Amino acid sequence: MRLSQPADIQLEDIDRGLMQQAQARLDQLTKPLGSLGRLETLAKQIVGITHKIAPRLSQKVIITMAADHGVVQEGVSAYPQAVTQQMVFNFLRGGAGINVLARHVGARVVVVDMGVAGDLSPHPDLVSRKIGYGTQNFTSGPAMTPKQASAGIQAGCEIVEQEIAHGVDIIGTGDMGIGNTTASSAITAAMTGAPVEHVTGRGTGIDDVTHTKKIEVIRRALTVNRPDASDPLNVLAKVGGFEIAGLVGVILEGARARLPVVVDGFISGAAALIAAGLEPRVKAYLIASHLSQEPGHRMVLEHLGLQPLLDLNLRLGEGTGAALAMSLAEAACKVLTEMATFEEAAVSGKTA
Amino acid sequence: MRLSQPADIQLEDIDRGLMQQAQARLDQLTKPLGSLGRLETLAKQIVGITHKIAPRLSQKVIITMAADHGVVQEGVSAYPQAVTQQMVFNFLRGGAGINVLARHVGARVVVVDMGVAGDLSPHPDLVSRKIGYGTQNFTSGPAMTPKQASAGIQAGCEIVEQEIAHGVDIIGTGDMGIGNTTASSAITAAMTGAPVEHVTGRGTGIDDVTHTKKIEVIRRALTVNRPDASDPLNVLAKVGGFEIAGLVGVILEGARARLPVVVDGFISGAAALIAAGLEPRVKAYLIASHLSQEPGHRMVLEHLGLQPLLDLNLRLGEGTGAALAMSLAEAACKVLTEMATFEEAAVSGKTA
Repeated sequence: MRLSQPADIQLEDIDRGLMQQAQARLDQLTKPLGSLGRLETLAKQIVGITHKIAPRLSQKVIITMAADHGVVQEGVSAYPQAVTQQMVFNFLRGGAGINVLARHVGARVVVVDMGVAGDLSPHPDLVSRKIGYGTQNFTSGPAMTPKQASAGIQAGCEIVEQEIAHGVDIIGTGDMGIGNTTASSAITAAMTGAPVEHVTGRGTGIDDVTHTKKIEVIRRALTVNRPDASDPLNVLAKVGGFEIAGLVGVILEGARARLPVVVDGFISGAAALIAAGLEPRVKAYLIASHLSQEPGHRMVLEHLGLQPLLDLNLRLGEGTGAALAMSLAEAACKVLTEMATFEEAAVSGKTA
Repeated sequence: MRLSQPADIQLEDIDRGLMQQAQARLDQLTKPLGSLGRLETLAKQIVGITHKIAPRLSQKVIITMAADHGVVQEGVSAYPQAVTQQMVFNFLRGGAGINVLARHVGARVVVVDMGVAGDLSPHPDLVSRKIGYGTQNFTSGPAMTPKQASAGIQAGCEIVEQEIAHGVDIIGTGDMGIGNTTASSAITAAMTGAPVEHVTGRGTGIDDVTHTKKIEVIRRALTVNRPDASDPLNVLAKVGGFEIAGLVGVILEGARARLPVVVDGFISGAAALIAAGLEPRVKAYLIASHLSQEPGHRMVLEHLGLQPLLDLNLRLGEGTGAALAMSLAEAACKVLTEMATFEEAAVSGKTA
């Protein structure tokens, strides 16, 4: 989809009539009513999203977007900025957590340079949509221009369009970017109104002193930039990141294409907050993969009205939680489509 | 293993030295320390259980044991007894929930008749180890004789031995038996001392009147039989079931063979309570798959000191929760063995 501006994005409602048909089928399957719990809810949601009564999620794609953050100049991260670029190479070589978990669930990983602070050598599996060499340090002004924010969203939309051309049934989001929990905490505070100290965590594992500084840095960024919660694009430009902008586009275009979108952890969640600010109907298309150890993530999920599928104390990002949850989504659809009904299996129904 | 009596079962400790080596490797992988949360803990546990520094869980087996329960005469279930047998056929035809989820995760299902109330036609995929045609109604005396309880455990041990001959890396437990939440609630109350009303749920979905009756039936069973918590075999014989006895054997022999044992829901949990009563060291070999909607399950897990991996409001049994959790266990081992280290990937380490 070509956006003249993000306000263009309008989503249709999910198909609630077909969801009722899915419920009727679930209730005929050889199991006590409702006994597959959240797998049943998930199957029904995916029917509503895809407008298919028997959805199959065989083609699974995780879009992992990388970018750097000027705010790392403030000393808010435990790792040097070079790690963003080094991890992109690790993704391309297949050695990162996301590669392992994506292989495990049969998903392919699309690695995108949205704005790494360095020139990456071309690689057949690297999608280059660089908006800039890292954002500006948002403690002294906006992270990016409104034009860059829109371009980032547009890039995310286009990447989903390309994946649709290759064939995709479900999308997962992922991120890599030293400093991006700082941006995500700032977005969460700006969009939800939550106090900064409640939504700011340890990121990759910072010590107490750095954590205190990180909170102070985010407070300063919000004071300097005054992001406007009623204008999500303004929030994104002022305290966001290029990978977060890209993920906003991935989420919106995924939903527009009637694909279930499995949202990874805190950074993807911040992107979902912006996406839902632009078009609230997107929430019905989202599957929350897991509850991150980052304290701000709970606030993000509450704000989006989402309940995470997994609670495994993950805090790696990259799409690792999304990978595991996609497999549950696929399992849910198989329950709906592959289980026998009471009639087919000649099993007696309920008597009491 | 041939038991002269269940007290024969003695397990070795899991390998804590090798677990330290696994931790050292996990800490070298390209991710922030500990950022894969419970996947890391799980990988380490599996190293300890298997005594292998690089365990692979490619061969996954779910042992689903079926039996009937005399106590259904009291009207404690929502479905007729015939459903146990009908569901065994459904398992053999591949149409049940466990078939769908086992296929999804690449596990094979071993279906065992431990004591269905009827003669099942032979089937190449049905293992027949029938101890009886359902247990006795335990409101008026013991569910089974001590000899039957021991024979049930022995059968479970032997089935694991047979699966080891075919090749197996991880075992999951599963159950089918109309009336078996009643037996499991009785076992849980007897073994943990918890009040009957706290550990008795809706099973397959009974109404309020039936639920009240179920609680009363279990209280009566405990009064009539006076099961002795210090003698788990006594508890099993008095208020257990044939499939539960079989699962006790599966759990103990799995652990003896250094296999991770993924415990499904409430019924498998009741079997684990008995197994842990016989040999407390078994707890280190257990992986709790999920938290069931059955209220007694939380008590079971607390008593065993286990934390469930999934919380999806499942209450189907059959091994469905175990199937999903086995896939997480396999993923955890792949993290340990397939991820690149910081050195291999030339990624910079922590600075703050």
